[in-house]
Amino acid sequence: MAGRFVNEGLIGRPGSRGKLQTPALVLDLDAFERNVAAMAEHCTRNGMKLRPHAKTHKSVAIAKKQIAAGAVGQCCAKLGEAEAMGEGGIESLLITSPVVTEGAIMRLMALNARVADLMVAVDNPQNAEALAGAAKAAGKKLKVLVDLDPGLHRTGIAPGEPVLSLGRQVHASEWLELRGLQCYAGHVMHIEDFVQRREQSLAAMKVLGETRDAFRAAGLPVDIVSGGGTGSFNIDPEAKVLTELQGGSYIFMDKQYNDVHVGNGAPIPFETSLFVQMSVVSNNTKNLATTDAGFKAFSTDAEAPMLLSGAPEGSAYFFFGDEQGGIALPQGASLLLGAALTAITPHCDPTVNLYDAYHVVRGDTLVDIWPVEARGKSA
Amino acid sequence: MAGRFVNEGLIGRPGSRGKLQTPALVLDLDAFERNVAAMAEHCTRNGMKLRPHAKTHKSVAIAKKQIAAGAVGQCCAKLGEAEAMGEGGIESLLITSPVVTEGAIMRLMALNARVADLMVAVDNPQNAEALAGAAKAAGKKLKVLVDLDPGLHRTGIAPGEPVLSLGRQVHASEWLELRGLQCYAGHVMHIEDFVQRREQSLAAMKVLGETRDAFRAAGLPVDIVSGGGTGSFNIDPEAKVLTELQGGSYIFMDKQYNDVHVGNGAPIPFETSLFVQMSVVSNNTKNLATTDAGFKAFSTDAEAPMLLSGAPEGSAYFFFGDEQGGIALPQGASLLLGAALTAITPHCDPTVNLYDAYHVVRGDTLVDIWPVEARGKSA
Repeated sequence: MAGRFVNEGLIGRPGSRGKLQTPALVLDLDAFERNVAAMAEHCTRNGMKLRPHAKTHKSVAIAKKQIAAGAVGQCCAKLGEAEAMGEGGIESLLITSPVVTEGAIMRLMALNARVADLMVAVDNPQNAEALAGAAKAAGKKLKVLVDLDPGLHRTGIAPGEPVLSLGRQVHASEWLELRGLQCYAGHVMHIEDFVQRREQSLAAMKVLGETRDAFRAAGLPVDIVSGGGTGSFNIDPEAKVLTELQGGSYIFMDKQYNDVHVGNGAPIPFETSLFVQMSVVSNNTKNLATTDAGFKAFSTDAEAPMLLSGAPEGSAYFFFGDEQGGIALPQGASLLLGAALTAITPHCDPTVNLYDAYHVVRGDTLVDIWPVEARGKSA
Repeated sequence: MAGRFVNEGLIGRPGSRGKLQTPALVLDLDAFERNVAAMAEHCTRNGMKLRPHAKTHKSVAIAKKQIAAGAVGQCCAKLGEAEAMGEGGIESLLITSPVVTEGAIMRLMALNARVADLMVAVDNPQNAEALAGAAKAAGKKLKVLVDLDPGLHRTGIAPGEPVLSLGRQVHASEWLELRGLQCYAGHVMHIEDFVQRREQSLAAMKVLGETRDAFRAAGLPVDIVSGGGTGSFNIDPEAKVLTELQGGSYIFMDKQYNDVHVGNGAPIPFETSLFVQMSVVSNNTKNLATTDAGFKAFSTDAEAPMLLSGAPEGSAYFFFGDEQGGIALPQGASLLLGAALTAITPHCDPTVNLYDAYHVVRGDTLVDIWPVEARGKSA
């Protein structure tokens, strides 16, 4: 408790990775850096900008590394996330979900006063009016992307007259600046089969492209068309609609995205860099060990965590309540008390949201601890 | 961002509950206080002490209210939780899971030096030896409860010779002080049928009682027998084995425990006091609304959250990804943009672990914000 983080004293000590107090979120810096570089290179090669999604990492340090590698800024799923990124000095932010309540709109205006290039997605005429009124009261224009519903019906406005009408309203407002369109087809990202995923991604992109064309025909500016993700990163370029890609998970990868394949049947070409390390805390029963990582250490919206190291071949992790995990061991196998095990996270975003810090490792050494500044900032 | 919490400015303003920035964890103070008093009264009436589990609430303010109502201290699932409680001034703590790694044992000794009455559960001879060695090096005895496996095989040592032998080892150690036994039958707490739950609870208590008797016959002190929970609170007294009850969820209740029944077929007699409040952020699709609370706002290890207020009868919440929830509305119904909805949490402990603060309300007014100090302290 001397420092802010329980493992601070291990930074820089060779072999310290194996000595972490657990459960601990571990980031393999080499793999992470290769992922950051690979996506930056991919976007450059395809003439797209990259605006990675901070909802995945919630970390100012990671945002800065992505921007240093060429990203134009960050996406944020929520206002609180954007506040944390703004506080950390990130100057170009797109809030990808609508900001609607009176209190939230006041916070948005305060953030707009502090951040050089803040944009927010809008999918509702009434919300656009409220934002315009608040921007007027605050005395600074607010930049807006009109959010198009890709058919998922989560957020976004319907194609055709509804989206065009909203575009006209935003453009006509003295206190809103129409920057373009957003469309995120969240439902296609995890389709494991490439052909099917490509077909559905391109269908969404087609409607988005038509909307962009209709905007232009109506004299509405569309400098930015933002969307896409890790699941569509190599499909979006052929549609030639997006000006910027919103990928998030590519920096970490997880069990879900490791099961998603690209055209040649290979897995998506990013490496798993994010892990949860846990320790055996009880081993009194044959063919079973209990670790210190349960529902509070892994998100449970996807499958069970996948064991990567520390347990014999054929072992499997299962959730053993809030605080613990079980390791079902092969016949005759056992694990030592205190043994360190590593698992791949089932779904990286909500797992990261459980932790206050990344334990950044190179090889077997803890080299840094990065706080998850926007953890829990869902409001 | 002026203060530490986004809703601080609303404290004390009449009607402020409906204006919270969301998603927000909301605690109904009246219901909470009645729960705290009811369990304290129940334990007093049955001649048991109450040592509520901090794994549920992770809050120093709540621990203090429980202690003010008569609780003898707190249970903590993890060392980090105990550190946070110790930091907050809670003087009697039982860590209910084994503390095994070298680094963790060092932290445990540091905590033992600061906290007047610290106890830790032990289920392994090798661990007992390591603890004794560390206590000797630190120059202060460590209090220990021997943890008995109730048949769940998560933690605990087997009944009969194994547990007795461990008891002898602890008692013989100059640097460990044997305080008694722990046994937590985690697998019976959520059995919805009372008869079945009672049968299995009493079976575990029977073995625990026999173990206590064997300890006494062997001259081993058993001043404390700690265990039980919200699911067995009215079953444990008849077994007359536990000296203290470890209930956690009774202060909040959740969907899981609301489905658990007592002898007369009625639900467990504690009130739901914990809620998640969310807001509608998009409503462009017929019979559907999107709220700002998804996988990052509710734990997903149990069923879906249950809508309590703000939506028309017949509406149902469904998870709509990491950041959002969907509200399936009855035919023809709609929800206004920004409308506030309240849901009962599916499983309170891991849901609390997602939030940095409780929004404490009396009626419709936010009266306080309590930090969740031990949030994420799973290590």
